Amino acid sequence: MSLLTNDAKGVYVISVTPFHDNGDVDFDSLDRVTDFYLEKGATGITVLGMMGEAPKLTQAEAREIVARVISRAGKTPVVAGVSAPGLAAISELSKAVMDRGAAGVMIAPPGSLRTDEQITTYYSQACAAAGDGVPVVLQDFPLSTGVQISVPLMGRIIEENDQIVMLKHEDWPGLAKISALRDAESKGRRRISILCGNGGVFLPEEMARGADGAMTGFGYPEMMADVVALADAGDMDRAQDIFDAYLPLVRYEQQPGLGLAVRKYALVKRGAIASAALRKPGAGLAPAAIAEVERLIERQTKRLKEIG
Amino acid sequence: MSLLTNDAKGVYVISVTPFHDNGDVDFDSLDRVTDFYLEKGATGITVLGMMGEAPKLTQAEAREIVARVISRAGKTPVVAGVSAPGLAAISELSKAVMDRGAAGVMIAPPGSLRTDEQITTYYSQACAAAGDGVPVVLQDFPLSTGVQISVPLMGRIIEENDQIVMLKHEDWPGLAKISALRDAESKGRRRISILCGNGGVFLPEEMARGADGAMTGFGYPEMMADVVALADAGDMDRAQDIFDAYLPLVRYEQQPGLGLAVRKYALVKRGAIASAALRKPGAGLAPAAIAEVERLIERQTKRLKEIG
Amino acid sequence: MSLLTNDAKGVYVISVTPFHDNGDVDFDSLDRVTDFYLEKGATGITVLGMMGEAPKLTQAEAREIVARVISRAGKTPVVAGVSAPGLAAISELSKAVMDRGAAGVMIAPPGSLRTDEQITTYYSQACAAAGDGVPVVLQDFPLSTGVQISVPLMGRIIEENDQIVMLKHEDWPGLAKISALRDAESKGRRRISILCGNGGVFLPEEMARGADGAMTGFGYPEMMADVVALADAGDMDRAQDIFDAYLPLVRYEQQPGLGLAVRKYALVKRGAIASAALRKPGAGLAPAAIAEVERLIERQTKRLKEIG
Amino acid sequence: MSLLTNDAKGVYVISVTPFHDNGDVDFDSLDRVTDFYLEKGATGITVLGMMGEAPKLTQAEAREIVARVISRAGKTPVVAGVSAPGLAAISELSKAVMDRGAAGVMIAPPGSLRTDEQITTYYSQACAAAGDGVPVVLQDFPLSTGVQISVPLMGRIIEENDQIVMLKHEDWPGLAKISALRDAESKGRRRISILCGNGGVFLPEEMARGADGAMTGFGYPEMMADVVALADAGDMDRAQDIFDAYLPLVRYEQQPGLGLAVRKYALVKRGAIASAALRKPGAGLAPAAIAEVERLIERQTKRLKEIG
Repeated sequence: MSLLTNDAKGVYVISVTPFHDNGDVDFDSLDRVTDFYLEKGATGITVLGMMGEAPKLTQAEAREIVARVISRAGKTPVVAGVSAPGLAAISELSKAVMDRGAAGVMIAPPGSLRTDEQITTYYSQACAAAGDGVPVVLQDFPLSTGVQISVPLMGRIIEENDQIVMLKHEDWPGLAKISALRDAESKGRRRISILCGNGGVFLPEEMARGADGAMTGFGYPEMMADVVALADAGDMDRAQDIFDAYLPLVRYEQQPGLGLAVRKYALVKRGAIASAALRKPGAGLAPAAIAEVERLIERQTKRLKEIG
Repeated sequence: MSLLTNDAKGVYVISVTPFHDNGDVDFDSLDRVTDFYLEKGATGITVLGMMGEAPKLTQAEAREIVARVISRAGKTPVVAGVSAPGLAAISELSKAVMDRGAAGVMIAPPGSLRTDEQITTYYSQACAAAGDGVPVVLQDFPLSTGVQISVPLMGRIIEENDQIVMLKHEDWPGLAKISALRDAESKGRRRISILCGNGGVFLPEEMARGADGAMTGFGYPEMMADVVALADAGDMDRAQDIFDAYLPLVRYEQQPGLGLAVRKYALVKRGAIASAALRKPGAGLAPAAIAEVERLIERQTKRLKEIG
Repeated sequence: MSLLTNDAKGVYVISVTPFHDNGDVDFDSLDRVTDFYLEKGATGITVLGMMGEAPKLTQAEAREIVARVISRAGKTPVVAGVSAPGLAAISELSKAVMDRGAAGVMIAPPGSLRTDEQITTYYSQACAAAGDGVPVVLQDFPLSTGVQISVPLMGRIIEENDQIVMLKHEDWPGLAKISALRDAESKGRRRISILCGNGGVFLPEEMARGADGAMTGFGYPEMMADVVALADAGDMDRAQDIFDAYLPLVRYEQQPGLGLAVRKYALVKRGAIASAALRKPGAGLAPAAIAEVERLIERQTKRLKEIG
Repeated sequence: MSLLTNDAKGVYVISVTPFHDNGDVDFDSLDRVTDFYLEKGATGITVLGMMGEAPKLTQAEAREIVARVISRAGKTPVVAGVSAPGLAAISELSKAVMDRGAAGVMIAPPGSLRTDEQITTYYSQACAAAGDGVPVVLQDFPLSTGVQISVPLMGRIIEENDQIVMLKHEDWPGLAKISALRDAESKGRRRISILCGNGGVFLPEEMARGADGAMTGFGYPEMMADVVALADAGDMDRAQDIFDAYLPLVRYEQQPGLGLAVRKYALVKRGAIASAALRKPGAGLAPAAIAEVERLIERQTKRLKEIG
């Protein structure tokens, strides 16, 4: 397998972790949803992300999931989230997933970090913990982590840590950060890949600002593949038309805590996984929410037909 | 003037506070934007909200703004935000705005509150501070305040404080909370008005769940008026068609910190205020952002024409 | 080995985890410090606590440490911290440590919890995850976790979860909480053991309010053993004399982040462990801090002689 | 009156705001406690601090309190806290207190700040808001504000803002920060005054690290005056003896939320104010707490006699 590089682009889908209704990992569905992502245009897959319910897994499960997806995904690169409260756990999991063939690891900062000093120190130590030469994706998701990384600080981290080849960008608001990073690169700083998160809710603008694609989940990953491809081809109007058709559901999936249940509901409906169950303490969708999702999907289908 | 009651409905627009480029309050624009809101379908106006840059105002300015809007709005009810770190300041400002003819006051919980006990105690004290018989709007906005109010706790606060006649609903996710509140009312708890915030980004679903309307801002408040009116009339499909046409811009305006600059930009463009300036420490829109907004407005206009 | 019960009392020392200078766990020192704690009056030992650098350990290390301390401690009960971001990890570690002979497990709430509803639900799920019949210690440490548990909520959790036999009390301020819990018990609620933390900085008052002892660390654990024994014997004046002699150092050890380095420094000085090294990202003591600690220890020794 | 300079030293007592039992400001007691502070060795007085219940005051009350204390304090410099959510309020209050003769203003960062960029920008704007040439005290109190300022960032803020002449130091742990600031000054950075807070709980060590004194409250401010004077005279042993005698009560007063009630209780007992009442939502001391305080005071008196 090949390693992640700073020219990665396209759509790295944040994979769900399918469970049986009893809470066990459903490996058959994991195979199926991996196939599904590839069919829908994924150029990479990211496992053990927050929306992959990583913190709810045992380490043994985590490793098995990574191995299974890598095996199924073939030549498609697989990135594994290895965020943990401590460096030893990061080191252990990083070694495990890289040994199994991962293309790189993703690390979000622990919520206890506050000052610029703490954050830069952390990423130096985390890169060392990930292992010499292991490609690292920096996940910048303040809404979830509580850690805010300013543009100058992001630059400093990139300059100090060659292992960081990619930014999983989900600051909010974050468009200006993409522009600032690309601007610094145009003035000589080394390039990194920027794949955007937040469920794709700003994907057209992010592409126009210089992002390389998306790294996020959504029940209809073909939306992301289409928008990224059209943006790359310069057809922003068509990209936005498609995006707009999906936006009501994208928005609905963006509800913190609830969004993953919506996503899994859509994946079940589409035959990609067997059960929409979240592992505890996650909850499923209430009937009123299901009705809302069904209505949005119906309208989405109709609108997609209208725009052809 | 009349007082706010628990059957209030429609759209209470969260008014911007217009400033001159030098940072002074622009009272002429305040008149103009008040007229604008009324023309676009506002059934009420809320001043001194977070998006009204209330924390950046001196108390003298705050009072003058309330008096000016009340005078301009005629019979339309005006609600004033009176949130403050201390009860004495709440009491002082509440008396001032009620004396000037406000229909009620809005209070968000201070960010230091954590436990259910602290939150209920706070609202009892805050209602007393607001003044005997003064109608209170409870602003439930955890993303901004950090204070989370569960459904049972919300019920307890409503039961303990008759002065609370309205919920400014902007929990996220929050649809289930609306359903739960209405359900409790169907079983006997006194009714409160529920007007929804968050820039209207879930307005169709909120109306379907039993909300009475919206209390939020958006550069195109007619969207909210239309959606609320159509939902009231039972035409949810048409409501959603209109909503969907505006959604790309609604989404763009939802960017924390940045959204108000977008909103003011639109209001200037529409002739409702003279300058898009935010008072410090707020920043304006970068050229790239302006281009994005212009593009979204252009597409929005086109799409609105398509749906007729 | 016997299980932890709700009449546990005395001093459960929060054990440090000794490391070699290169960051490896120093198991010989672990034996030695276990002996040291027992010699100084520990009635129990708690491993894998926050001050045991638990989040910095791999799971394999964590299990080995628990097994080693249990083996060395003989009949002295050993409690193991099993706090983790997810229930599956709690379940896995709890089973492992109970299989190895632990007397119970300790669980602090994850920092994401806010509302009373979320917290009670969490403890029901966490008790189930710990395993049927496994005694659970609830660690109530808001300064570190950010989760605040009010007195009524604590009562509710105790009533709903029979497995919780002990409170590791380190709310701050927290004296009134001890009184309130004991008061509720005098009116019929089942008793739980209350062992106090925070480095013992309020131990005399806590004992007077009805605590059963201490569960915390300090370089001189004999202070805690003496204070608890004297308080039990009703000699509060003598208890306070001894406490006051140690207080300047207790206070110095209470510095967040820095305190553990102080504690390990004292333990090295006293021959209980070989190296004061903290595992990364922990830092050691600067020379100025070492001089301050030495000075405090010297004065402490002198003062203890004065009071006999 | 003279303005605060960067060579200020001694003890600036954080004044309580005395209230009548009904919650009104008690101006007679304010005179009395001002006299009391001066008699006990204050070289300055700071009003409208957090422990002065500043957020609970109306602006009119705040101004009257400042004027009253300045008038009573004669030539003793008076610093006024002007922290507020917005710059306009800071500007307004700063102008008001400087016009009335304050020696300078104190500003803590609002809790919403996170990144180094945000914090430096804030202090530039806040200094401008305070008014041209107005001496500013930077209050660095992360436990309360949630804002962490690293040593490099503090240096940058000092270098960028000449108006900042003093640091109210209450980072925790914070001893290394004092050393680092003094070290940078020895290498050429302009000097600032460092007065320490946190109720004086680290005062001997802070003085030894290079602090200029204390700016905090405690029911027995003569402790701080004695410790600072003895440290200045090089008699650290005697300074520590006196400190240790007061430490059990200092520690007790350090309880967040509760400490101010303890302090006011001591001030009533000593005849400095008429009522220990806190303005709502503050609570008074329970009987058990009063008994604890009385016991600590009794022991403190005895111990002070012993050391002569």
